[in-house]
Amino acid sequence: MSSVGEFALIDRLKKFQTRGASVVLGIGDDTAVLELDRLRYQLFTTDMLVEEVHFTRAMPPKRVGHKAMACSVSDIAAMGGVPTVAVISIGVPKDLSTKYIEQVYAGMNACARAFGVSIVGGDTVKADKFIINVALLGEVEKKYLVTRVGAKPGDKIFVTGKLGGSLSSGRHLTFTPRLKEARFLVEHFKPTAMMDISDGVAGDLRHILKASGVGALIDVEKIPCHKNVTLDQALTDGEDFELLFTLPFTRARKLVEYTKIHPEWQFIEAGTVSSMSGKIQMKDKAGVVRSFHLTAFTHF
Amino acid sequence: MSSVGEFALIDRLKKFQTRGASVVLGIGDDTAVLELDRLRYQLFTTDMLVEEVHFTRAMPPKRVGHKAMACSVSDIAAMGGVPTVAVISIGVPKDLSTKYIEQVYAGMNACARAFGVSIVGGDTVKADKFIINVALLGEVEKKYLVTRVGAKPGDKIFVTGKLGGSLSSGRHLTFTPRLKEARFLVEHFKPTAMMDISDGVAGDLRHILKASGVGALIDVEKIPCHKNVTLDQALTDGEDFELLFTLPFTRARKLVEYTKIHPEWQFIEAGTVSSMSGKIQMKDKAGVVRSFHLTAFTHF
Repeated sequence: MSSVGEFALIDRLKKFQTRGASVVLGIGDDTAVLELDRLRYQLFTTDMLVEEVHFTRAMPPKRVGHKAMACSVSDIAAMGGVPTVAVISIGVPKDLSTKYIEQVYAGMNACARAFGVSIVGGDTVKADKFIINVALLGEVEKKYLVTRVGAKPGDKIFVTGKLGGSLSSGRHLTFTPRLKEARFLVEHFKPTAMMDISDGVAGDLRHILKASGVGALIDVEKIPCHKNVTLDQALTDGEDFELLFTLPFTRARKLVEYTKIHPEWQFIEAGTVSSMSGKIQMKDKAGVVRSFHLTAFTHF
Repeated sequence: MSSVGEFALIDRLKKFQTRGASVVLGIGDDTAVLELDRLRYQLFTTDMLVEEVHFTRAMPPKRVGHKAMACSVSDIAAMGGVPTVAVISIGVPKDLSTKYIEQVYAGMNACARAFGVSIVGGDTVKADKFIINVALLGEVEKKYLVTRVGAKPGDKIFVTGKLGGSLSSGRHLTFTPRLKEARFLVEHFKPTAMMDISDGVAGDLRHILKASGVGALIDVEKIPCHKNVTLDQALTDGEDFELLFTLPFTRARKLVEYTKIHPEWQFIEAGTVSSMSGKIQMKDKAGVVRSFHLTAFTHF
């Protein structure tokens, strides 16, 4: 696997995708999109967490459970939808206590309840490392669906919170999926493109740019960094799970005004969509513009 | 984990299950059952396969992929439904070649196509053993849904094929999920209870008996055994993936007559539902009836 990154592999595997009559959008966005009824789409996503890759045995099991569910909720939020029901597969090493597993479920379940998810089924198998897979369904009104396609030159680029240091700080175990923010946005501001930031904002922005056939000019000074996090970390660290979205100029101005009156909402403008397809440029303090070369966090 | 079997764990985890308005049936059957529309339910299932537990690296990767998809299709079939769309999570060790993974996908995809499934999304993560999780949706007409609840004393017990030796013979990698048989049954014979046999017919029969509050008298001579398989193996070996179902007396007679005229269908009558709740009895060649003590294949 060392010679092929996750995205290259996904690209190669796309050719295997079959597409039935009810599939609106398959591999390549935060979730799959399926026909549900006249007014709604169904959303479908799967996320696997593996011990020693995404968490360790030393971490509090409730938080590990929280993370497993929260990652999937974040994917549904990124499409503008609300999550509904989940099925959970777990791989359980022989030496793991039932108490540990119950704590993981307690964390998963607390997160599920908080976001309106029913856990309705599962599979339990043997494994030598602890594995959790959450498959989650959601729904979105057709008029509210947001994908990665749709960002237009001149659109403003936003994030929903501070970035960087998620893994080193432990925030990757306790983050709040931006479901409330996503629903507020689709109901009142209609983003032109949206996704959640799992691989670092720079890498994930590239997915929106590629899907939308546009570029971006990032205002480096405006990138919101967590405490003790460098700009480079804020741009490339993984597992922030903030939302990244684009808004046309007029709606962007309105959102900025709105957040001034309602500081409980964090929507931070950090750049502009350009017409230079696939290219990310960075404007520094002095106004100097440079090309940005990606060194994003990768899961491989 | 050694002190608690899979079913005990599932029972303990059931208490965490939340149940929304749209959930018809949660943890405890082959799939979850969700409201879809006036005429149909949606089915939702998840199955995890782990290297060195469910398959080895030495086995043909296409067959491993086939098995991963076929297990889930079998779950949907067991409810009387048809599968629709799947999302796949894979955990990939560093030393695994892209070619191997592509072969696994080719096997999964061939099985998906054969049973009308669209693969619409996935997740790819690092792991130290190869892991495949298939989350599969399906649909069933409300009038055709079959669960584990509903077997009545006097009903006849059937299986859809020969049993035993699946793991030792390699059949667990190449089996055909009994989707065609299940749909034929729900459309024409309305089984009172049904499930797929993954843990050995004796163990799985116990699930139907428990859910339905009944017992069973098995006619030992009629248990269909694969070549070179003992009766005990046929009763307790895992991963047969045949269907186990019950039919009221009159419909059972009709099905037996039907299979005489249409030998391409295998529906083998092997016993009768009794009123002795939870109890399995075995009638041998000589007509002697004995209690059967379960030593079913367990995934732990």
